[in-house]
Amino acid sequence: MELYGAVEAGGTKILAAVGSAGEEPLALERIPTTDPGETLDRIIRFFRARASEGLPIRALGVGCFGPVDLDPDSSRWGFVTSTPKPRWQGADVAGTLGRALGVPVGFDTDVNAAALAEYRLGAAEGQDPTVYLTVGTGIGGGAVVNGKLLHGAAHPEMGHMLMSRRGDDAFPGSCPFHGSCWEGLASGPAVEARWGRPGEDLPPGHPAWDLEAWYLAQGIVNLLMVLSPRAVILGGGISQVPGLINQVRSAAASLCAGYLDRPRTPAEWARTIREPGLKIPGLTGAFLLAEDAADTKAQ
Amino acid sequence: MELYGAVEAGGTKILAAVGSAGEEPLALERIPTTDPGETLDRIIRFFRARASEGLPIRALGVGCFGPVDLDPDSSRWGFVTSTPKPRWQGADVAGTLGRALGVPVGFDTDVNAAALAEYRLGAAEGQDPTVYLTVGTGIGGGAVVNGKLLHGAAHPEMGHMLMSRRGDDAFPGSCPFHGSCWEGLASGPAVEARWGRPGEDLPPGHPAWDLEAWYLAQGIVNLLMVLSPRAVILGGGISQVPGLINQVRSAAASLCAGYLDRPRTPAEWARTIREPGLKIPGLTGAFLLAEDAADTKAQ
Repeated sequence: MELYGAVEAGGTKILAAVGSAGEEPLALERIPTTDPGETLDRIIRFFRARASEGLPIRALGVGCFGPVDLDPDSSRWGFVTSTPKPRWQGADVAGTLGRALGVPVGFDTDVNAAALAEYRLGAAEGQDPTVYLTVGTGIGGGAVVNGKLLHGAAHPEMGHMLMSRRGDDAFPGSCPFHGSCWEGLASGPAVEARWGRPGEDLPPGHPAWDLEAWYLAQGIVNLLMVLSPRAVILGGGISQVPGLINQVRSAAASLCAGYLDRPRTPAEWARTIREPGLKIPGLTGAFLLAEDAADTKAQ
Repeated sequence: MELYGAVEAGGTKILAAVGSAGEEPLALERIPTTDPGETLDRIIRFFRARASEGLPIRALGVGCFGPVDLDPDSSRWGFVTSTPKPRWQGADVAGTLGRALGVPVGFDTDVNAAALAEYRLGAAEGQDPTVYLTVGTGIGGGAVVNGKLLHGAAHPEMGHMLMSRRGDDAFPGSCPFHGSCWEGLASGPAVEARWGRPGEDLPPGHPAWDLEAWYLAQGIVNLLMVLSPRAVILGGGISQVPGLINQVRSAAASLCAGYLDRPRTPAEWARTIREPGLKIPGLTGAFLLAEDAADTKAQ
């Protein structure tokens, strides 16, 4: 059996694994995200140690926090670009790992990787376009459109769509760039700043959740209007609050106001806004990126 | 030389032409959009008359006002669906024309057709993703993503993104579904309802244009955040107001607030938000849809 390496790189922790997409990883390590030199070195040592134990990888896939450079013609392909994260600006993630490990590297955003995984193997199998959202410390979105991941001038930054504030909400928004963009109004830090305590401490039925569902719905309605996705996967910490996804579906139907032919019925809204189907969509997507990189290299 | 038929169907008028994409049409007729029976009959008679004069068409392409059904597996593919336009709801546009003329039919929205034309032959040649916007009696948007037109559950309805009203604007919005969606705040009828006279009568320098540029910019920023397009073509009547596109670029840069790596400089904003490159993008796109339909049929 061919083995692959997968890295899901988040802002606070990194998962590195050996295995293949859709299978339980044969080895998995959680690495804290500190400075790039130390962090990338720990990732390299993980894969070298596994190779020495008889688990060599054929290719590596990386789903990385952004912004990243995904332009295959750029000299900075595979770099983290303008992140506010200390010392990661300009870090050559894909190049450093690929050179050290001597394998082809597939590289994309963490949310594009998760979108690919849910589209190929998860809750959105074959649903084109598929959007994957994660709502937590930020709001991130990735997408598969016409069979491929969505890239362009850069990559989607769905969390920074500009939004309408609900009439009863005076919170100015927490985004340092845009104030009241989607992330500024509905991410975990926005919820905590608005209500004075984190989402984990807000009980079901608290008005925070009705408002949160309304903002998540507004952003999702805009995604429907732009991308016409067949499936929107709602992932991440905040979105796992019990019952929230049903509130989001209802609010989205209400905001959409019967304009679209599909989704229209409650059943169609439930098929459109879905829970993740995979336990580890980001890591699964990184394995898929690795497999694709190996196939491309082999051609 | 192979000849094709093209139909650009708008809400008030229809253009029908014989020729091929990127060439001056050999025959062109403007047909008023009345009821579907009469209108489709006039289109059929136009193409039959041209065929009898030695200009037979190999295939037909139709770029149609929406909403339309684009699902190839649907029994209503090629139909106009839930339009408020009198009597067009449920009209079988593609089927009626294809059966009467005995040729393969390519069918899409008018704005998707225009996006395809600008992407293959116009101002956005090879720029993937490309978005084409038309701002006039409504706001419509189409897109090419990963080399193909953007479809899904239905097709883009970019004009119905939900928007933030500018602090100094009390106009409630003119969309019968959403009030203050993009179209409700920035279409031609919205401008006329807000200022009491149509855009044609508002002089350069009138505050209407600064506000209009701000709303167009807000929607375009959201498109950048979702689709990461390399080119956004600003078409349609309102967008042709002298100087407006530069105001839109400035307002978009300001709203984006330096968040994106690209576009960032004024030159990059000018390359991202572009004027149409084609005189008749919708009709050119319809010719391309016809050529693609002929190629598909020939396979």
